[in-house]
Formats: sequence, C-alpha cells, structure tokens
Amino acid sequence: MGKSPLDPILSGERLALARLLTEVENDSPAARLMLDELFPHTGKAHLIGVTGAPGTGKSSLVNQIALHYRRTSEVNPRRVAIVVVDPTSPFTGGAVLGDRVRMRDLAGDPGVFIRSMASRGSLGGLAQATAGMVQVFDAAGFEIILIETVGAGQTEVDIARLAHTTLVVESPGLGDDIQAIKAGILEIADILVINKADLPGVENAESALRGMLSLAHPVQKIFHHGQVMSLPEAVTREASKWEPPLLRTIATDGTGVEELLAAIDQHALHLRQNGGWKRREQARLEAELQTLLTGTLVAEFRANIPAERYNELVEQLVQRTLSPNEAVKMLLKRRA
Amino acid sequence: MGKSPLDPILSGERLALARLLTEVENDSPAARLMLDELFPHTGKAHLIGVTGAPGTGKSSLVNQIALHYRRTSEVNPRRVAIVVVDPTSPFTGGAVLGDRVRMRDLAGDPGVFIRSMASRGSLGGLAQATAGMVQVFDAAGFEIILIETVGAGQTEVDIARLAHTTLVVESPGLGDDIQAIKAGILEIADILVINKADLPGVENAESALRGMLSLAHPVQKIFHHGQVMSLPEAVTREASKWEPPLLRTIATDGTGVEELLAAIDQHALHLRQNGGWKRREQARLEAELQTLLTGTLVAEFRANIPAERYNELVEQLVQRTLSPNEAVKMLLKRRA
Repeated sequence: MGKSPLDPILSGERLALARLLTEVENDSPAARLMLDELFPHTGKAHLIGVTGAPGTGKSSLVNQIALHYRRTSEVNPRRVAIVVVDPTSPFTGGAVLGDRVRMRDLAGDPGVFIRSMASRGSLGGLAQATAGMVQVFDAAGFEIILIETVGAGQTEVDIARLAHTTLVVESPGLGDDIQAIKAGILEIADILVINKADLPGVENAESALRGMLSLAHPVQKIFHHGQVMSLPEAVTREASKWEPPLLRTIATDGTGVEELLAAIDQHALHLRQNGGWKRREQARLEAELQTLLTGTLVAEFRANIPAERYNELVEQLVQRTLSPNEAVKMLLKRRA
Repeated sequence: MGKSPLDPILSGERLALARLLTEVENDSPAARLMLDELFPHTGKAHLIGVTGAPGTGKSSLVNQIALHYRRTSEVNPRRVAIVVVDPTSPFTGGAVLGDRVRMRDLAGDPGVFIRSMASRGSLGGLAQATAGMVQVFDAAGFEIILIETVGAGQTEVDIARLAHTTLVVESPGLGDDIQAIKAGILEIADILVINKADLPGVENAESALRGMLSLAHPVQKIFHHGQVMSLPEAVTREASKWEPPLLRTIATDGTGVEELLAAIDQHALHLRQNGGWKRREQARLEAELQTLLTGTLVAEFRANIPAERYNELVEQLVQRTLSPNEAVKMLLKRRA
C-alpha cells in the first residue's frame, strides 16, 4: 500500500493538522473529502464542552485542565486538543489574541494543540466547523478534546451540550442578570464549577447554585418549534442517574483542578456504563447531519434562483407588497 | 367592509396582542396567516437592538429607555414594545422572572408592552420568532421596539445587529475575558454605552473602549462560508459616516438616559438621511426570508424521508461506516 495523504493527520503532524483545520474552517471541498476519509478513524476521544458566562475565567480553567491532563499520568499522558469557539470576535482577531495568551503555559508541549475559531456568517456554520475540527483531532489521536465556547448564547450552549461531558463554569459575585443565565444553562451541566473560588461571595454563590440545581428538572418536550432542526431529545441529561457535582476551583493557581479531572473521568465512566455515551454520540452525530443537510439543501436551492429574481423579492419585502412567508411560497412554487 | 380579525391587533388591544405573540412563538399556521395579513402594516417602527455581556445591567437600562420614551414628550409619547430574547433560560422560566422584575417600573402604562421569549430548539427558531414578534408590535403601532438579547453569543448578536440601531452595553470592572467579547461586538455598535458608570474603573473602561473603537474597521468579506445563510453585507455599518458615540449611564437612577435617547434619535435621523435606513431594512428582511426559507426547505425534505431510513443512517454514523457528508449525499440522491 502506498502512502496515504491521511497519514500525516493520523500521526498528528502539527503542520498538516494546522493546514487541514484551516481548510475545515473554510469548508473547502478538499476538507470535506478529507473529513470523509478521516471519519472512520474517529469516535475514540472524550469530548468535553466548557461553557459559562464571560468573566468566569473559563479560558484559564481550560488551560489548567489541559496542563493537568498532561501532568497527571507521567507515563503515557493523554494528548489534549482545545477548540476555542469564539464567535463574538470575528473582526479584530480576538481568536488570535486568545491563542497568544494561552501559549505561555502550554507552548512547546507536542501533546497539546490549541485552535481558536471565529467563523460565523452562517447559521450552522460555526457548529459545522466545530464538528469538523473535533473530527480532525479525534482522528489524529487526541484522547481529550476540550471545546470552549467564549460567548454565553444559544449557539455556544448548543455546541457545548453536544459534548460527552459538559462543564458549566460560574464565578462568585457577577452581576444580577447572571441569575437569568444560570437557570438555563444549569440544566445542561454534567459538572458545575465555581471558578475564582478565592473571591468573596463564594459561599453565597454555592448555596444559590445548590438551590437552583435542586430545581433543575429533566427536560422533556422543549425541542419542538415546528421545525426539524430541533436538537435530538437524546441529548437530554438523564437527571435521575447522574447528580451533577458542584466543584470549586481557582484556575490561576490550579486549586481544585485535580478533583475536577477526577469528576470528568468519573462522568465518562458513568456514561460508558449506562449507555449514555452512545446516546450522546447519536445526538451529536444527528445534529451534525442536520446542520450539513440544511446547509446543502439551502445552497442547492439558492443556486437555482436567479439573483435578479431574488433581489426583486427582497425589494417587494421592503415595499411591504409581499410578506416573507409569501415570498418563500413563491420561491418554492417556482421550483415545482 | 366587515370587521377584520386584524382590527384588535392594529388597534393594539393587549389581550389580542398577547394571544397572537404566543401563537407566533409557537409558529402556528394561524400565526403565519396573521403575519401575512399584518405585514403590509409594518415598516414604521424604529427597531433598537440592545446587546452586551451579562452583568452590564442591560435590563435595567432597557427599562429606563422605555420609561424615558414615555416621559420625554408629554403630549403624544411614543409607544414602546420590549422584546426580551432570552435563549439561555428556556427551562425554569427565566423569561417569566424577567417579566416580573420589570413590572415594578412599567406596569400599568398601556403604552408599554413587554414580552420575553425563550424559544430555542431550532437553528433559526429564535430569530424567526423574534422577527414575527417585532412585526406584530410594528403593525400594532408601537413606534419604538427594543430588542434586548440576554446572552452574548452569536445568535443574540445576530439578532441585535439586524435592528436599525444597535446599542452595545458595557460596564466597568468586569472580568478579563470580557475583553475578547468587546473586540467583536464593538464593531456592530451604533452607540456604545458604559452602564454602571458610578462604579470604580469607569475611566479605565472608557479609555480602553475608545482605544478599541479606533481600531474597529469596517467589515468587508467576513460573511462567506460556502453557505448561503450569510448575513447580507448591507448590514455592515458605514464606518466612515457615523462615528459611534460613547455614552455613560447609570440605569439605576436614570443618569445619562436622556442623552442616550437623543443619540438614538440622532442615529435614526442619520440613517434616514443617507439611505442607511433602507439598507438595514433590506438586510433584515433578507435575513428573515433566509431563515424562513431554510426552515421550510428542511421541514419539507425531512417529511419525505421515512423515519426508519433516517435512523438507519444515524446508526451508520455512530458505527463510523458512513460520514455525515456521505449521509447527506445519500439522502439527496434518494430524492432525485
């Protein structure tokens, strides 16, 4: 057998990886082909989503988690990839900045690969690019893939919740409308972390979070909205089986990170023992399928509408002589 | 002519409005019909998006803006609708809580209508529901529609930027990874607000923001990702023409809110004078069209795939015998 173009990726060559990740972010045809070829080699990594409001020190915590994974088992430490999903700074290179800040601690370790991503511009584009990057790292043999979402919105939460293990990071003493955020994302947490636990107010934060945790009910039929893009229900946490632990960390000095790693590994074990691992795989892959399907269908459809006709319809919308719903109907009728 | 079912909406009857908004959130067939009928009556309101990180006091500021709009012109004060987009708390009734907190200040004023929304579950579902609600309020004669996004992620920013005027709210002394957020959302700001301006650190925050503002360049080709869902480029701020002012407010006592209203009105005037108003209308309506088109296409397509076949494909994904991209191709081939 000759040498395959997959080999440099499968053996984790950094330059080849970096190039492919860029192709994946640009969704090039070459990237799609490579992802097809790599896909059979995926499915081994433990995907860990990390989300939470800005200001909680998520990035430092993710750094620490990576460092600890590298340090804990001296003999054969697991390789760690970090995908930073940073849609809020696509303009002025926020992602690049993020990379630079991290490098101080993790630079030079060939067992760690950090990639920031600021793609946006399309509904689903960010989710699709993240999925592709995770597949690349998985095929390249990174056992741990941390998916850090910088924002705290719908897209970011959706990305984080499709990991095997989802960490929700909080910190003491943030503003009052943090409360509104907590209520929602608490329910996607497999592990809840109060970072910056050396700040005043940590006791209050913890008791508030415990109170909210006890209110958190398993999610049932929240994903119907008359559209088929709904996240699969299988992603719902099996609340009766896994009680999300609440841990304190201080990312700046590493306090509590060892315990956090133990909880993460414990959760992976739990998933593997009760079938949850496969359910989450199904949910994630189905979501990826839906994202790709949507993008392809819409691209195909739009390619068949003359630009002139499309602009005409938009102008009719602006003039209020046609509603958006009516315009969609006209476009669909035209095709038939 | 007989009495139309539109009349209660067009005359702003609160109960009829509340009912229709619920239908719109559920995307019922009845709601779609009503939206079609109402659409010719829209296009008069000034849409104001308010976004920014949690903890900046956005909600209080939005309250104050509404109060000031009601107070400033005693003779014929503008009617104000508030749409709170709160995707991060769909589970435990965060939206309801939000409503209750606001009521203290604004309850009993028939010229104000507040509606929170926590729909999610579908890519585009939130954007679609927001667009529909805004159309209802616009048709019902609310001159000012504030669209407040509680999160700080991609979806929320996309929703806020499609308003006529986008306010980005910051506050002094938030955590360090706020910085990463700022860089990105600064560029969608038509008006930049430092709220909680009585807190220490306001000088630093202001000079940091001024520095970042000077770096903010007009956006060009960021919206191509190989997919057609890209936000129209027309939404790009004409940086050379409008210099986003930076204002300080203290929402808790109303300081600076009058000046903020003046800046908002100034921006509307600017847009109307240089054609920006129409460009933003085009961009917003085109985005709405794309969202609806996507949802409809995918729903239609999925309705023609037997569930059995679909589940089979997902299982092949889980087994890694088929890649997501290959699965999409097979689904599309089947149709032909």
